[in-house]
Order: sequence, then C-alpha cells, then structure tokens
Amino acid sequence: IDRNAVKLNDKFSHLLIQLILSPAAERLRYILGEDDDMPNPTLFTEMDTLQQDGDELEWKESARWVKFEEKVEDGGERWSKPHVSTLSLHSLFELRTCLQTGTVVLDLEGYSLPQIVDEIIERQIDEGMLSPDLREKISFVLLRKHRHQTKKPIHRSLADMGKASGGGARHAHSRSMNDIADTLSTDQLRNKFMKKIPRDAEASNVLVGEVDFLDKPFVAFVRLAQATTLGGLTEVPVPTRFLFILLGPTGKAKSYNQIGRAIATLMVDDLFSDVAYKARDREDLIAGIDEFLDEVIVLPPGEWDPKIRIEPPKKVPTADKRKSVYSLNELGQPNGTAGGSGGHAEDEEMPVAHELGEELAHTGRFCGGLFLDIKRKLPWFPSDFYEGFHIQSISAVLFIYLGCITNAITFGGLLGDATDNYQGVMESFLGTALSGTVFCMFSGQPLIILSSTGPILIFEKLLFEFSKNNGIDYMELRLWIGIHSCIQCFLLVATDASYIIKYMTRFTEEGFSSLISFIFISDAIKKMVSHTQYYPINTDFKPDYVTLGCQSVSALMSTPYGIVMPNMAKLNITDLDWSQLSKKECVKYGGSLVGNTCKYVPDLALMSFILFFGTYSMTVSLKKFKFSRYFPTKLRKLISDFSIFMAIMTFVGLDRLIGLKTPKLIVPTEFKPTRPDRGWIVLPFGKNPWWVYLASFVPALLVTILIFMDQQISAVIVNRKENKLRKGCGYHLDLFWVGVLMAVCSFLGLPWYVAATVISIAHIDSLKMESESSAPGEQPQFLGVREQRLTGILVFVLTGVSIFLAPILQFIPMPVLYGVFLYMGVASLSGIQFWERIKLYMMPSKYQPDFPFLRHVPLRRVHLFTLVQIICLTVLWVLKSTVLAILFPVMILGLLVVRKMLDMVFSQHDLAWIDDILPGKDKKDKKKKGDKDDTKKKDKKKGRADDSKDKVRNVKIYCHQLADLEQKKPC
Amino acid sequence: IDRNAVKLNDKFSHLLIQLILSPAAERLRYILGEDDDMPNPTLFTEMDTLQQDGDELEWKESARWVKFEEKVEDGGERWSKPHVSTLSLHSLFELRTCLQTGTVVLDLEGYSLPQIVDEIIERQIDEGMLSPDLREKISFVLLRKHRHQTKKPIHRSLADMGKASGGGARHAHSRSMNDIADTLSTDQLRNKFMKKIPRDAEASNVLVGEVDFLDKPFVAFVRLAQATTLGGLTEVPVPTRFLFILLGPTGKAKSYNQIGRAIATLMVDDLFSDVAYKARDREDLIAGIDEFLDEVIVLPPGEWDPKIRIEPPKKVPTADKRKSVYSLNELGQPNGTAGGSGGHAEDEEMPVAHELGEELAHTGRFCGGLFLDIKRKLPWFPSDFYEGFHIQSISAVLFIYLGCITNAITFGGLLGDATDNYQGVMESFLGTALSGTVFCMFSGQPLIILSSTGPILIFEKLLFEFSKNNGIDYMELRLWIGIHSCIQCFLLVATDASYIIKYMTRFTEEGFSSLISFIFISDAIKKMVSHTQYYPINTDFKPDYVTLGCQSVSALMSTPYGIVMPNMAKLNITDLDWSQLSKKECVKYGGSLVGNTCKYVPDLALMSFILFFGTYSMTVSLKKFKFSRYFPTKLRKLISDFSIFMAIMTFVGLDRLIGLKTPKLIVPTEFKPTRPDRGWIVLPFGKNPWWVYLASFVPALLVTILIFMDQQISAVIVNRKENKLRKGCGYHLDLFWVGVLMAVCSFLGLPWYVAATVISIAHIDSLKMESESSAPGEQPQFLGVREQRLTGILVFVLTGVSIFLAPILQFIPMPVLYGVFLYMGVASLSGIQFWERIKLYMMPSKYQPDFPFLRHVPLRRVHLFTLVQIICLTVLWVLKSTVLAILFPVMILGLLVVRKMLDMVFSQHDLAWIDDILPGKDKKDKKKKGDKDDTKKKDKKKGRADDSKDKVRNVKIYCHQLADLEQKKPC
Repeated sequence: IDRNAVKLNDKFSHLLIQLILSPAAERLRYILGEDDDMPNPTLFTEMDTLQQDGDELEWKESARWVKFEEKVEDGGERWSKPHVSTLSLHSLFELRTCLQTGTVVLDLEGYSLPQIVDEIIERQIDEGMLSPDLREKISFVLLRKHRHQTKKPIHRSLADMGKASGGGARHAHSRSMNDIADTLSTDQLRNKFMKKIPRDAEASNVLVGEVDFLDKPFVAFVRLAQATTLGGLTEVPVPTRFLFILLGPTGKAKSYNQIGRAIATLMVDDLFSDVAYKARDREDLIAGIDEFLDEVIVLPPGEWDPKIRIEPPKKVPTADKRKSVYSLNELGQPNGTAGGSGGHAEDEEMPVAHELGEELAHTGRFCGGLFLDIKRKLPWFPSDFYEGFHIQSISAVLFIYLGCITNAITFGGLLGDATDNYQGVMESFLGTALSGTVFCMFSGQPLIILSSTGPILIFEKLLFEFSKNNGIDYMELRLWIGIHSCIQCFLLVATDASYIIKYMTRFTEEGFSSLISFIFISDAIKKMVSHTQYYPINTDFKPDYVTLGCQSVSALMSTPYGIVMPNMAKLNITDLDWSQLSKKECVKYGGSLVGNTCKYVPDLALMSFILFFGTYSMTVSLKKFKFSRYFPTKLRKLISDFSIFMAIMTFVGLDRLIGLKTPKLIVPTEFKPTRPDRGWIVLPFGKNPWWVYLASFVPALLVTILIFMDQQISAVIVNRKENKLRKGCGYHLDLFWVGVLMAVCSFLGLPWYVAATVISIAHIDSLKMESESSAPGEQPQFLGVREQRLTGILVFVLTGVSIFLAPILQFIPMPVLYGVFLYMGVASLSGIQFWERIKLYMMPSKYQPDFPFLRHVPLRRVHLFTLVQIICLTVLWVLKSTVLAILFPVMILGLLVVRKMLDMVFSQHDLAWIDDILPGKDKKDKKKKGDKDDTKKKDKKKGRADDSKDKVRNVKIYCHQLADLEQKKPC
Repeated sequence: IDRNAVKLNDKFSHLLIQLILSPAAERLRYILGEDDDMPNPTLFTEMDTLQQDGDELEWKESARWVKFEEKVEDGGERWSKPHVSTLSLHSLFELRTCLQTGTVVLDLEGYSLPQIVDEIIERQIDEGMLSPDLREKISFVLLRKHRHQTKKPIHRSLADMGKASGGGARHAHSRSMNDIADTLSTDQLRNKFMKKIPRDAEASNVLVGEVDFLDKPFVAFVRLAQATTLGGLTEVPVPTRFLFILLGPTGKAKSYNQIGRAIATLMVDDLFSDVAYKARDREDLIAGIDEFLDEVIVLPPGEWDPKIRIEPPKKVPTADKRKSVYSLNELGQPNGTAGGSGGHAEDEEMPVAHELGEELAHTGRFCGGLFLDIKRKLPWFPSDFYEGFHIQSISAVLFIYLGCITNAITFGGLLGDATDNYQGVMESFLGTALSGTVFCMFSGQPLIILSSTGPILIFEKLLFEFSKNNGIDYMELRLWIGIHSCIQCFLLVATDASYIIKYMTRFTEEGFSSLISFIFISDAIKKMVSHTQYYPINTDFKPDYVTLGCQSVSALMSTPYGIVMPNMAKLNITDLDWSQLSKKECVKYGGSLVGNTCKYVPDLALMSFILFFGTYSMTVSLKKFKFSRYFPTKLRKLISDFSIFMAIMTFVGLDRLIGLKTPKLIVPTEFKPTRPDRGWIVLPFGKNPWWVYLASFVPALLVTILIFMDQQISAVIVNRKENKLRKGCGYHLDLFWVGVLMAVCSFLGLPWYVAATVISIAHIDSLKMESESSAPGEQPQFLGVREQRLTGILVFVLTGVSIFLAPILQFIPMPVLYGVFLYMGVASLSGIQFWERIKLYMMPSKYQPDFPFLRHVPLRRVHLFTLVQIICLTVLWVLKSTVLAILFPVMILGLLVVRKMLDMVFSQHDLAWIDDILPGKDKKDKKKKGDKDDTKKKDKKKGRADDSKDKVRNVKIYCHQLADLEQKKPC
C-alpha cells in the first residue's frame, strides 16, 4: 500500500513499479511463509571464469562468497580482503533478463557434472534455444578442468620464491588444478578455508565465460534435488546445490563477469537463498530478484568511488528483520530519513526501559529472594568449575591476583597504622584469602572480587580512636559490631531489601564507578609522589663536589667547618673511625651526619617513575595491539590478554637489570598475627561492660548501610546488561555471604570485606569472550563473559599461599604494581557513557561520534546532564576527603535523590536516551502506549529476534568501546 | 555497444535497458557536448518539509547538501555529520515518475516566490492537472514561513540551557524563522555556514510535504532564468536557481521525503546538475536521471545496514572522469571486477613510468641545464619571499633551527676531535650559517637544508691524519682539495652531468634515505647511551651507607682502611683539610678519591632518558593530535605544527623544575677561531711543496663524487612527485652553489656542506599545505609544500646569530635535542614504501593494507624485492661502520647496479608496480603499446584530467601516510 503511494500517471513507469514490487512481495510471502522450521543450509558461492591457458581452456576461480566477496587478485595471486559486493544496477537488470530467458531447472536429480550438463543442453535443444550441433562444443567447454586459488603453506611458498626467479612464469604456481572427473582432490580436502564455512554448508557454483562459437548467450540456472559433490568443481569439499552457467559470444567478458557477481551476491543473500531453495518456478526466482532490487541500497556515483572496496560493516541487518518487510509492510528506510512530519520518532526505536531483571523482584515471602537466587545459581554450579579451564583464565588469575595482593598490602599497611597493628598486613592477606575464597565459591555472582575498601578503613580508624580514648577493648567491640551487622544483613536478605537497587539508574551507577575509578587513579599517583618524597632527588648535586657528600662525624667533633677539635682528637681518632661508620651506626653512637647529600637517595625516584609509567603505558599499548595489523589474530589476542603480565615481567626485568634498590613488594613470610599480643580468635565476652554489646548495634547500622551500598552497587555494575551474563546473579545470596563473612572475620580479628568495583570490572574485562569470526569479513561479536568460580577461587587461594611465594614476589617493585593500579583505574573508566559525555565538551559538534543519544537529545541538554553529574561527583570527592567519608554510602543515596529531581528538569524522552527511565515512570509510559505495545510484543515472541533489541544496544556499546580503543569511528 | 551485450529476448526488459541506457546517453552527449567553457555554479541544496507547529503550518529545513548530505537530527536539534546519501532504488524510480508527470518549467523569469508559485499553479490548471479551486490552498501552503536549523553562538546556547529547563519546551530554540516576504534576514546573513559554500554558488530548494486537500501529488520542477534571492527560502543568502515542489495526499510523508532526498542528491551530483542547467526539456532531465541510475552503485541489502551513515570517502571520482563515460563508451566498473579473460589488466591502469621531469633532460649545450635552471627559478624569485609569510613558517623555522644547531654542535665537536680543533664548534656554526644562507638564497631548490654529513667527517679525519703523518700542512692541502673539487663541480654542471640521476629509481632513492634515517636514529640513541656511560648509575647505592660515599684523601695518606698515617698527619691535617676539597682540587693537589660513589653521578642518566624519550613521544603524540576529535581543526593544526616546539618547551620546563645539572646546549659565545693559532683566512701558498697543489686533484675527485651523490640523491628525494612541488627544481644550479661554497669554505677554513636528507625532509614536512575542506564532509587534500626561501634563510641567519642567543639556548638540555633527532629520523622513515613493505613481513596477508602493488604483484615477489633491499642496506650499513665509509657515495652507485640486475629477476610488470621502470625500458614498453597510447594521450590533453593520474598516485600515497598516522585503514 505504501508503495503505490504516489499516483503514477505514466503508464510505463507504473507498470515497472507494479511489476517490481507488488506481485513479487505477494509471491514471496506465499513461498517463504510456508514453513520456517528447517533453516536452509548456508551457501558457499564460487565463481569460476573461463580462461585460455596456452592452448587449453580451463575454468579459473575468480571470486568466492561466504557472506562477503573475496576476489582473486589476478596479479597478486592472492585473495583480496573480504568486502561488500558493490554491483551495478545494469548487471542486476541483465541477470534478471538472463533468468527470464535462460533454462531454469529446479530439483534436478543429478549425480555428476557431465550428467547435469547433458540434461541442460538437452533441454535447451528441446526448447529450440540451442542448435543441436553445438551440443558437443558446449559440453566440452563446461567439462574443462577447474583451477582454484588455494593458499599454500608458507614453507612451500618460500620454496617457490627461490625457484620462480624467472620473470615471466607468473602462472600455475600457487594454484591447484582439479579434473572434474575426480571425486575429491587432496588440495580440496586440505584446504584450510573449510574452517570458515559452516559444517552443513552447500555450494553454489557460478560459471561464466565467453566462447567463439555462440552467437547468443547460453544461460542455465540449476537447483539439484540433493546437494552433490561434483568432483573438482568447488575449491572446498562442499557438495554443490546450485549451478549458474552463463556462456556467451566473445567480447563481453566484463559484462558476463558482472552478471556472475550479481547472481553470486544474490545466492549468499539470506532472503534470496531462501527463495532459491523454495522456488517453485522461474517466476519465483524473478520475484526474488525484484524483492532484492527493492531493498537494495543505492549510492550516488558522484559521492562514492566505485573502486573503493567497502569493508564489511560491524553489523548487518538480520534476515529476520528484513523478512518482516513482507509481513509488516514496512519499508527498510535508508539512513538519511530526513525528518518527516511526525514520522521521525519511528525510524529509531526508543531505548529499552530500565529493568534490572527478575533477580530484584520483590517476592514478599520470607527469604523469597534468597531461595530464588539459590535456585537460579545451583544448576550452573558444576559448569562454574569446568568452564574455567581456558587459557584466558590464567591471564585473568595473574592479573587479578597481582591487583589483590597489591590491595592487600596497601590496605594492610594502612589498617596497621590505623589500628596500632591489631590488623596488619598478615591479617589483610589472610582475610582477603578467606573471604574471597568463600565468596567466590558460594556467592550469587562469583565474578565479584571482595577487597578492603576506603570507607571501611576510615570506619576502623575512627572506631579504634574511640575505643582507645574511652578505654573500651577495640577487638571485642569490633566483634560485636560485626555480629550485629551480620544479623542486620540477614534481615535485609530475608526481606528482599535489595529490591531498592532497582531504583538505581545509569546516573548513579556510573557516578559511583567513576568516583571509585578516580580514587584508584589518584591513589596510584599519590603513592608514586610519596615515593619521590621518600627518595628525594638531589638537585644541587655537582659531580665535582662528590667528595663533599655525606660524612659521619662525632657529635662533639662536628663544627661548622668540620675541623677536628684538638682536645677530642686523641680519643676519637683512635677509638672510632667515624668516617667509616654507616648512617645507622653513626646515629647509634651519637654522631651526626654532615654534608649536603645526606638526605638524598640518588636515582630511585626517577627509576620508580620510569617503572610506574612504563608499566602503565606498556600495558595500554599491548592491550591496543589486538587491533593492529601485525601477526595472526590468535597471537594478538594472546598478547592482549597477557599484556599486564608481560608489562610486569618486562619492568621487573628492567629493574633487575639496572639493579637499583627500588622498593619491592614484601609479603609476610610467617604465619602469625602482626601484633604479638593478640591471638587468632577474638573472644566475645570479658573485656567490655555489658551495655557495649547492645550499644554496638548503632555503629553496626552504619557499617551495614556502608556494606549494603558498596556491595550492591558494585554488583549492579558487574551485572550490567552490557556484560551479557547468562547465568544470572544473586543479590540476596551475595549479601548473605558478605554478612556471614563479616561475622567470621570479626571472630578471627580480620578486616571486613565487600565488593571492590574496580577490581571486579577488571576481572570481567579479563574474561570477555568474542566469537571467532566465521565468514571472512564478519566482525567478531562480543559473546559475554567467561562466567565461572575458578578464577576467583584461584586468585584467593594464591593470595593465601603468597606467604610461600615471597621469594618470587620480592622481585616485583612497588612502582610496577602502582602502574597496574593506574591501568585498572583508567581501564574501568573506558566504556562508561558518563566519560564519553565529558569528552563531548571538548569536541566541536561535527567531530562528535554518532552516539544514538546525540541524534535524539539536544547537545545542550546532554551537556547539562553531564554537568550535574560532574558537580555531584565533585561534591562527593570533596566530602570523601574529609572525615565525612564514613557517610559515603549514605551520600550515594543522595545521588538517587538528585537523579529523582532530574525528572523535573529533563523530559522522559531525553532521560530515556541519556539515562534509564526509572521503573515507576516506565510503567506509566507503557500504559500510555497501550495495545500498540502489546501487538509488538507478540510479534517479538513469535520471531527469533526476541532479545535482538538488547543485543543491538549491547553491540553498540561494545562497538563504541572498541572504536575508542582503535581510535576508529564508531560502528 | 558494450551495453547491449547479452541478447535480451524478453521484450519488457529489453525495452527497459534500452530506455535507461542508450537514448539517454545519446541525449546527454548532445547537450553536454555543446560548450564546456563556462563551468556551472556549485549548487547548494536545501530540503524543507511541511510541518504542523501548533495551529500553524510551516516549512522546516530537514536536510541540506553542498556535496554530501547533512540531516537535521530532529531530537538532537543539530546537524548530523555529512554523509553519503544512501537512497532507495524505489525513491529514484518514483522521482523519475514525478518528473515525467509533474510540471517542468525551465528558464522561468521569476523574481519572487509568490509569482513563481502562481505561475506553476496556473500551468497545472491549464493542463487540467489541478482543479482551479485548489489554487488558493496550494498557494497558501507554499508561501508559509521557513524555519531553518541555524547554529547559535555558544554563549547564546548556554543562555538557553539555563532557561530551557522545563522538560517539554523542545522546539523553537535554536532555529530562525524567516517570513518568505522578507528579503534577507539577519539570521541568513549571519549564518556561518556561508563559509562552506563557494562564492558563486546558487541554491536549489526542495519542498516536500503532505496536505489533506489533495488526492494526487502536485509536482513541479522549476529552473529560473536568473538565480534570484527568494526571501527567507534558503538558510543562507544564496540566490535560488532551482525549485522542486512535491505536495501530496496525507499518509505518505516518508515516501515524499525519500523522493525529496533523491532529487536533492541528484541536484548536487556534478553531472546531473550540468544536465539540469542545460536541459532543454523534460526528456533531458529524465535522461539525466537514467544516466545517474546507470552509474549508480548498488549495495546488497544483506551485506550492508541501510542505517549506517557512510562517511564521505577520501576521494570521489571527478566529473571529468565520469563524463568520459559518454565519450569513451566505457562503463565505470564497480570495485570487485572479478578477473575476466584478459580484461583484468584494464580495470586499473599501470602506474606511470619513471620520469624525473624536464629538469634532468640532457641539453647537450654548455651549461644548458644551468641556464634552464636559472630561467625556471627566476620568475619565482619574488614569490619565494612573500610566500614565506605564514604562521606555519615560524614553527618550521624553530624546528629546523633546533635541528641545525644540534647538528652543528655535534659535528662541530666531532670535527674538532678529528682535526685537533682546526675546525671546531665555532667554525661549524659559522660555516653552517654562511653556506646555508647563500644556498637558500640562490639555489635551485631552497627547501634543501645544507649540513655536515658523516662521509665528509670521515674524509676530514683521514685527511688530517695523513697530513700530520707526512708533514703536510692540513689547512693548505684542504684548501687545494676544495678548489679542485669546486672546479670539478663546475665541470659537472657545465656538462649537465646530473642527467645520470635519471637512472635512480625508488629502489635506490628509498634505500639511501632509509639508510640515512637509520643513521640518524642510531646516532640519537648512541648519544644517549654515551650520556648514560658518562653519568653512570650507582646500582650498589644503599641509603644506609650514604656516609661511605666519596672522600678526598692525600695520596700519601690513603690506605686500604683510610687510617691516617702518623708521620704525615701533622703536615696534612694542619695544611690542608682534604675532606673539604672538591674533586678537582683533590686531583690538583695530588690526592686521590676513595669510596664507592666516586665514579657515579646520581639521577642524571635517568633524567636524561626521561627527557629524551619524553620529547620524542610527546612530539609524536602531538603530531597525531591533528587526527583526534577534540577541539576545532585550526587549533589542532596549530598544535600539530608546533608539536616539536611545545615538546621542547615542556621538557626544558620539566628540566628546569627538577633542576638537575643535565648536560645543556652550549654554543660558542665569542667570535674567534676555535684554535688560537689559525686565522679566518687560509692562504693558498707557502706551506706545502708545489706538487701538493696538483696532487690534491685526486682526493678532490673523491670529495666531488661524494658531494655529487649526497647532494643529488637528497635533491631527488626532496623533489619527489609526492611532494607536489610547483616551482620546479634545479639540480645543476644546486650543484653550482655547492661547488662555490666548497671553495669559499676552504678559503675560510670552514667545514664543507652538502644537502642533509633527513633535515631536508623534516623541512618539507613542516611546510606541507592542506586544503581547507570546502564542502562539509570533503576531505582536505594535500596541496603541496610552501615553497619559499624565507624559512631556510631565517634558519641559517638564526644559526649565525646563535652566538648572541647563548643565554637562551643554554637552558636546552642535550637529551631533549637528541629526542628531536630521534623524531626526525623516525618521521623521515614514514611514508617510505620500502618501510611499508618491511611491515608486510609481519602481517598475515588478510590484514595487509590494500596497497595497489599488492593487487598486482604476488606477495612472494614483493617480499623478495624487499629482501634484496634489506640485504643491500645491511651491507651498506656494515661498510659504513668501517673505514670504507669514505667510499659510501660510490656504494650508492652500487645500488644502481643492483637495481639494474633486478631487471633480470623481476618482470617489468612487477617492477612497474613495486619500483619505477627505468627510462630506457619504459620507452620500449611505450612503443609496444603503440597508437593505443597515443589516442589516450590526446584525450588526456583535451580533458581537464591532465595530470589526474599523478594526482591519484600522490593522493594515494599521501592517504597511506595519513592512514599510518591515524592507525586507520588506508583510503
């Protein structure tokens, strides 16, 4: 209906449009609608052209298609890169004519090429299209040998290189020649290209060529009843199903080639191949072409050079989406759909409303959520282990392990300072290992990595000071807070309280994770700066004054001019040679240090900087290496996966090579509490008055809120839809285990642990899976994350046994680990939309990437939204640097309130694009849309494109990330 | 003829093809062939759609075209990025129908929109296509206001941002509303988009919309006799020439939009706009569409998502090239032209044969070449000065100046060592300044930078040793060699000997320049390593033993245990406090240094490394910044141009900040010869026996060859076609001045100078010009190099007055300058095909960039060719490290021989693609091709596409360079 829109007064054109569009769609709807149960096999298409090689005629492979076209570069004797087949309209029209006039044989029972050829020729003679005396000639030509462009192993090519030094011999080198009489040659069987073709594939062969004995074209389109291997016809051992033959008079080779490319392109088209498999007669095929023509995308010749080979796009429309064209009667509109009154909202669907999935549904039953979580996770439990066996896991374990022990040492040191060594590095290691292992083993989301976090540290610090000042026993008080907090967690679990996380949108989520990333980055840099202050650079050093360095002198002897006083000389010079004492000895014997180099340590500061920055930038470069052109994909992926490990090894090596005494990683080597006067078990009673046991309920409440927010926001970030997790998550189960571990750690006097956002994101990043690209030219798709418990468990077991790994770990300089920290912080920022939006401030609008939200929301609104986020984060950052940091989790709740207020400033349309719509609002919107939505939903359920929308969104986001890394334009 | 290739038996299709192709081409050949003198104005096309805004109807701008399409993002209230218009075939057919059925008015004498509208409506009523009672309604609709999408200045947008906080008000903010009655509104006049439209442009307006009172479409195509400003119709003050109106019944807005986009795309098509300007009637227009359809590029729907906005290509086919379609009857074949028997060579032309241009023609007359050079360069002489006034020149001068003085100091130091200070840093500065200034002022190619080079240095060294050992006066001998060499140069000039440079192909040229680049890089690194050795790192340093540093002790006192011996104590302790002496004093008084830190200098080595590597990598990053998305183009270009300066400033600043005593640049501050016993003039006679004057002819010969090769190869590299120099060059003139300067420098006892490849390339790189992109989406083109004498002269004048700049220059650490050296070396490697081919070794063939030669030459042959080059360079490198280095220029001649031998190993076809064909061979090939070539040449001369082939080649090479920098895929 839409198509006949404009009244076409002109007869001819009317006829044309009518012919091309309406009956074709009608026909196709009929044949394709029949049954959709058995999908057709994938088609591999090979096009061979007739060539004169010396005296002999032969068929030479000139192009092939799995999904995209690969051409044989004639001079280069190699395959071109896969590219989108650009056709001329002319050749498509000529092909249409060919199919209208030539022989079309459907469901031929053929078992060999000669038999098939005979059959075709007979039919043409019968129909009077071919004179009988040409029978032999055509048959002869069609049964010539086929020469394929096959890839030789490199050693054979090299051997060739030596031999083939004679300039002229440019043929017959890297090709295999198959007689069509053979069944399957070794070259065919050995062909590595087979890997790129699906197992069930069938072949379609296109043969075009010019011969001198014909005066009009000989055209045949054959579909075999059964796919049959026709000897050496195809380069790979794939049975042939379709055969297109075009022989014509000489002089038109180019034109025939174009027609051949046109039919080959059609054969690999998802819809046309469907038509080809199901066509009942010639008219169905023509209808297929017409439908193809209708969907075709046209580039104006003045704006595009036809010589440019178009690289395959990141994403092509699925057959399902295209098929809906027939059923829904909607035209797939080309990109530029310019405005249109009221119609503009339709060309791109609104983003999906904010939904966190069934995991956060409020059951209303006691422990309802927890039981659901267990029910959901239990079936995956075995696979959580065996799916961990993959090389990628090794790199993930190494990476996260290093992150964890760095964290354990850092926080251990800080906790030791804060609590007078009641909890030190030893406790930190033990606690990390214990909590981590238990959590990864039993939690709802084993990809989450537990760690000490800043707010907890500050809480412990304040608590310790409070206990000391008020004469309360710190460890016992802490134990009771832990117990209370554990009980409160259980209460939250039992009442499905994690439900409220549903109200968290991208605004809050990204704000939180950005903040944590910034803290990571600033911590890494702060540590480096403090190193520099610890090992200061002597900027006044003059090589000439090296002798005036640092000397140890007796306190009594030291005078401004360093002259030995006569009365003391006798005793000192004979008793003690001060100048030979080390710094420590000098101080011990009451001497003092004189000289201008005393307080400096040469080289260490700069070396630390080189190690720090080197590790960071090498990691970044190696990560990017995945997108370079060098080396095979697998090697590049390996390098990229192990980039952090390689960077650490390199800079540990450099450090060893230069041999400076840079500060190294020191792990405890003995299994005993840091503070000698405490044991491994904290007893609950005896040291504090009874009311303390009850009163500790109040600080416990703060701890609970703190833990709840930290844990669940991190979980939301980990469980993001972008990560495509299959196994579901378990917010309630996670919280349950965090509660249990709270209590256990309190009894053992170990630090408390919650989910660490940045390390968890790093964990996920290091476990991302991509599809091996199947058809040449198809882009690998992000498939999801290797969800399992093994890596997490290994990381924490390794952390536990780090005490025994000390001899190895002692080689790692701390600056290298801070470099890893910096990388983690920066990497977790990438791919956050908030960060992308900040970058927009600095880009002139014409250079801005084509983000979907920029097409739909005015830039100034986007900027305003970003500005609000920046202000919120700045406020949080400032607060976090004060003692108010303890209220940090409560402030995150503040973010929720700010987001709620934004509803008043921004329209729901804008928020849908920049942020997610809140669940409540969403429902209202849904009701408004009413039945229109319903019908759509039904359609969806019926089709295979069930979750395609999500997929699209995810792929887009992923693509942006990739693009960011590659510095390429987004998909 | 080609088109009617396949006999089309089916009537209908036959008719279709006939209709679309043959008569159309015929018609167009007729109207376009008429006169080609006056090119038509550029067309700016604006498409407005009818919108209901509240109660009012209005025309809203929805897209515009200068060359590519820019769409109004409805939600985003902004312009989309310029993209290639992808159309549907359907809309093109509908447009064709519209033009067949609607009103076509050509050369209407209209002065206002109401009058034009009246005229159209009258015609339609006259022809019975419109009922008269619709007259008022249509006129009313067509004369509604036009609302344009204009860009507001940022402060106004920000003001809006504050105001427009109410969610709903999404309209009427950043738009201007023009009543069509107005003449020109301020919004139109202020529109900054005008910059992107050529001055002589005319507008074509497309108006499409749906109205409820029509039951069939109202279509009109109007060409005005004179381009007329029709009030607020167009967003910019450009007079309208064409008007396309499509009003239709409601419900088909999308379809109308597509038709509107189709006509708009056609209007900006170079060929169709020509047709539109010259069309005599409706049929001509239809023929134009048909031709357009014939050239159209078709993308299969399954391989491309129509929603992807295609970025404008780097290069589009020119109208001339496309027009040749009619005259040569060749189809512009789409990219994938698969093989084809014998036809494969035609689809891409063989690369142009090796020609170095008329500059190197052998005149046969005495000084013929020299006179031609002068004749060629003289007319450009004034422009050589005034064209230098550009901001880019400042950055170029700074960059090259720093390179030159670093070179002068380095070589000065080395020459001083080699000649016992007969030529030192002072002479080096003076010589550089003198030679450079004279050469840049008078030479044939002022872009060449003169400098000391390695071979000359080695020659001087050997010469000095020889003189010393044989009792010959070095300076006098050197003077005579200089005089002889000067005379020999004059002989070479007079006989046009530079002619032989013609036999230098890419093989030799790139081999030489790669070698020089490698030397540059290795020199920079060597210098850094020697720094580290000069300031070694104390790896045994332990902070605790700081007191056991370095002490000065009297030689007599020093014992293994540092105990003062009793018999010397009296004298020494009272006379001299050894411990308070500096290193120098200690050594002076015969003391010795005791302690393990004596030989170390803290921090300097690492600091030097940081400065070196930092300068290099910051320069590289800032250079790349040009391709980032941030900040406006101009700012990015500025940053990129001044990248070296900024990097130097940054690291000089860092050095100052840290305050270490890094080695600084020290220039001589007094104007006197380095060696006190020599004057500024060397006298020719008196110190050596007479036969020395004659015998010096022999070493002079070596110097001449050395200078000739060094100078001319560098000149060839500078004069490469890729650099698109307009002003020609002058090999003979260059050599003449080098000869003169040889003699002058010999008399003054200054070093000799020849062209320095790497610095000259850097000079050219820093002066490259790019077109400001005109139409949105068009890629800036490399236009050529800012050829002038000013930058060169300034560089050398600055070098001369560096003596007075010492107070500023002393802040620059040497490692920073070595970083600049490293950058120069690496940068001069990029864009060399040899280097690209080396990279191919590491790339799996499917990732290799689409270099033209890879399409035509088998990979193993390419690899073999590269291997030969690598071996040659390795041999040269090894020889260069020995005393044979003096024969270096002769070895370059060896490269020519190797290249000649390659003719036996590689076919001429292969060499044409990888290397250039030598002039002799080329002629043979040309003769073979015979008259076919001749006709082509004639065509070429007639058309405007005269040097388009070269352009294509250059643009390709340039694109690859760009791509390399951007890490993007090549164009």
